[in-house]
Amino acid sequence: MSVSEDQNQSSGERLIFDLNATPDSSNESSNGLVGNLLVAQSGGPTAVINASIAGVIQEAGKHMDSIEEIYGGLNGIYGILRENLVDLNDEKARSIEELKHTPGAALGTCRYKIQFQNNPDQAAKDMDRLFEVFEAHNIRYFFYAGGNDSQDTNNKVHLEAQKRNYQLRCIGVPKTIDNDLPHTDHTPGFGSVIKYNATTVMEIAQDVSAMATDDGSCCIIEVMGRAAGWIAAGTVLAKNNGQDNAPHIILIPEIPLDEEAFLSKVKEISDRLGYCIVVTGEGVKNVEGNEIGADKTKLDSFGHPVLSGAADALAEIVQGKLNLKTRTVKLGYAQRCAAHYASKIDVDEAVACGKAAVKAAIEGKSGFMVTIERNSKKPYEFTTGLHTLNDIALVERTIPSDWITEDGWLPNQKFIDYALPLIEGEPNVPTEGGLPKFAKLNKVRVDKKLPAVS
Amino acid sequence: MSVSEDQNQSSGERLIFDLNATPDSSNESSNGLVGNLLVAQSGGPTAVINASIAGVIQEAGKHMDSIEEIYGGLNGIYGILRENLVDLNDEKARSIEELKHTPGAALGTCRYKIQFQNNPDQAAKDMDRLFEVFEAHNIRYFFYAGGNDSQDTNNKVHLEAQKRNYQLRCIGVPKTIDNDLPHTDHTPGFGSVIKYNATTVMEIAQDVSAMATDDGSCCIIEVMGRAAGWIAAGTVLAKNNGQDNAPHIILIPEIPLDEEAFLSKVKEISDRLGYCIVVTGEGVKNVEGNEIGADKTKLDSFGHPVLSGAADALAEIVQGKLNLKTRTVKLGYAQRCAAHYASKIDVDEAVACGKAAVKAAIEGKSGFMVTIERNSKKPYEFTTGLHTLNDIALVERTIPSDWITEDGWLPNQKFIDYALPLIEGEPNVPTEGGLPKFAKLNKVRVDKKLPAVS
Repeated sequence: MSVSEDQNQSSGERLIFDLNATPDSSNESSNGLVGNLLVAQSGGPTAVINASIAGVIQEAGKHMDSIEEIYGGLNGIYGILRENLVDLNDEKARSIEELKHTPGAALGTCRYKIQFQNNPDQAAKDMDRLFEVFEAHNIRYFFYAGGNDSQDTNNKVHLEAQKRNYQLRCIGVPKTIDNDLPHTDHTPGFGSVIKYNATTVMEIAQDVSAMATDDGSCCIIEVMGRAAGWIAAGTVLAKNNGQDNAPHIILIPEIPLDEEAFLSKVKEISDRLGYCIVVTGEGVKNVEGNEIGADKTKLDSFGHPVLSGAADALAEIVQGKLNLKTRTVKLGYAQRCAAHYASKIDVDEAVACGKAAVKAAIEGKSGFMVTIERNSKKPYEFTTGLHTLNDIALVERTIPSDWITEDGWLPNQKFIDYALPLIEGEPNVPTEGGLPKFAKLNKVRVDKKLPAVS
Repeated sequence: MSVSEDQNQSSGERLIFDLNATPDSSNESSNGLVGNLLVAQSGGPTAVINASIAGVIQEAGKHMDSIEEIYGGLNGIYGILRENLVDLNDEKARSIEELKHTPGAALGTCRYKIQFQNNPDQAAKDMDRLFEVFEAHNIRYFFYAGGNDSQDTNNKVHLEAQKRNYQLRCIGVPKTIDNDLPHTDHTPGFGSVIKYNATTVMEIAQDVSAMATDDGSCCIIEVMGRAAGWIAAGTVLAKNNGQDNAPHIILIPEIPLDEEAFLSKVKEISDRLGYCIVVTGEGVKNVEGNEIGADKTKLDSFGHPVLSGAADALAEIVQGKLNLKTRTVKLGYAQRCAAHYASKIDVDEAVACGKAAVKAAIEGKSGFMVTIERNSKKPYEFTTGLHTLNDIALVERTIPSDWITEDGWLPNQKFIDYALPLIEGEPNVPTEGGLPKFAKLNKVRVDKKLPAVS
């Protein structure tokens, strides 16, 4: 996007992060705010981020006295800056309902970030443009579904609106398979990814154990999680309390890999059971702190580092040093969009987060993210809460160290008690011709009112 | 296994493959054969091989006048040679029913092959031992579920029984995700693997297309299939007749990879749609006939070839030459054991194959493999048939060349019409705590009657 130079004077100042700003939760006078709603999605998709959007749209439909039009921003901030909006009131009610079992991000998402730190001038231009779009379309309710980065953006938009005296209610909708947002019990998307991954581990264990005859074998399954090990740890549920059940070893980025100890553990297990199933987070690091899957010393024919990944790197070690037949599985994107076997509770919570965001905004709140709170452990019950975006943006939560067994190879009962309720139930995903049927939005464009940016 | 030298005299002769031997389908006199049944599994497991075993056991239970005991051989021929048998009559009826949605191979499988070609002496010893075990346990009905190799073994056992004048009914139960057995419309296991893979491609497309904004991306999904491209081709069903739907390119081992044409196709698609989804069979070869995933020039720190795989090899090319962000998914074992989203028709056919095998044996037949025949295309209806093992053993079926589009990038409507009915319906897999509940057999051992082999 290019904006003429003179639009950019001293705009950096607006972007100063105001730590003392308090969300206007008690701003009773704005309760009667009437205008249009804009919802958008950001960051990596999940199996349930569309369920949150469905929650926003369905709740918004109940507040026609405050919310006039329900718009979706295509491809998050990237599309909103380009005034790429769609009219969600033009969608069929059934399509909105179908969003609850449709993976990906139905409105599109983006990797584009407003560069508050690295390029404050461009960030100021982006903010100017964003509020031009908001004003042009009378956006008064803004909901951004995303993870850490997105909540940071959301908070900046909230603060900017206050500075500009532009009446806007910004509420963040939590979303990330990584489960690394603070101040929420967990995040929508996490339950579904660990349910699918744990199921996959169980199924692979059925397969690999059946072949455990004369010479043993090892299977290494790589799952997502670059900084935190929540996703890898979640596969512990596949054990179902069976000590010898897979996975036998779970490697997480929080614990540096001790190669000797790892090999010795693999050997012990494969000698005893005839096979060993390892789950590794993609971001597992060696004792020097380097990711084991990104070996810069190996170059392909173009001079680029070989894209081996953590599982393949481990497989080389196991096959090479233990002479044990080793196969790898890299679930990659498949794990975060596996709506066909999502967690029902995760879907329900994602919908609830979307609805709670709208309710909070209608009540006059802004500058919060919806949180999930565990009301009861057994039976599991949740409710939604709110937490100021100030505390959430850019903070990453890792697994508590006392949720891991002393030897470091597996999460312990504390983790299991935490994670188990999050995978309960299966949504009833309709099929057509043997394959899941996903929502297809019409995406009727809202007429643009501003000059285009290039 | 060691057998004393003198047991081995001229035993190689017994193993000569008798092309003129005809299965004794008309052997009315043997209809009254009474004895015990032995069923075993061989080769790579599938999502539905246990369903075939359930079919064998449930049908066998109806013929108590002919079949006295129902034994399972653990780990295929490997375990039978060691007299590792279990009494399947000791299993709960519910466990047998649960086998229909339990992946892996409940009786265990093996990579062990009787070395008829490479080591005829050892093969003769194995055959001697096999018939010792059969005699010791009065095995008169033998069912071996497996692919090409297993059907070859089965045929050799059938011919050997005829030579020895040992009354035995051998029927092969077809099993292979690879769908490369001849003389059957398709094989149990294939429908489920392509249903799961096509679903995964659809879901990944939802994810990757949502992120298609400024700079485009490519996702390469590696699926099984070393010699034949049936599994990769099956993901074409994800397109659901949408020309621009994923997958956009399917690479199969039958067609050598033209790297330039491939890159140009990826570029054309990603330029147009913002993303490109490629499915590759693991055994795709370059024009020199070498597997692209097994690059012998790259060595790890132990001097072993880097285990890159086809998808990673392609990703290096795409990322390197097109400068297009590329991510890989390697489904590996996950795809062949995904019982949680198996094809119901596949499960039903697998059960039917098991039942048909027992019925054929009771009718006095031996030396056949059960086949699946397509009675009606629309609506799809199947029946089981029988084909002599002589024609099946070691023959691999590849995709007919006129089932591929002229440009070679995708299977055509002929393939789609063939494959679509095979993925219909979902079995109702029970869950417990949010995860699938699989059968757990007691595996009560049958007392051994022979000296152990070492």
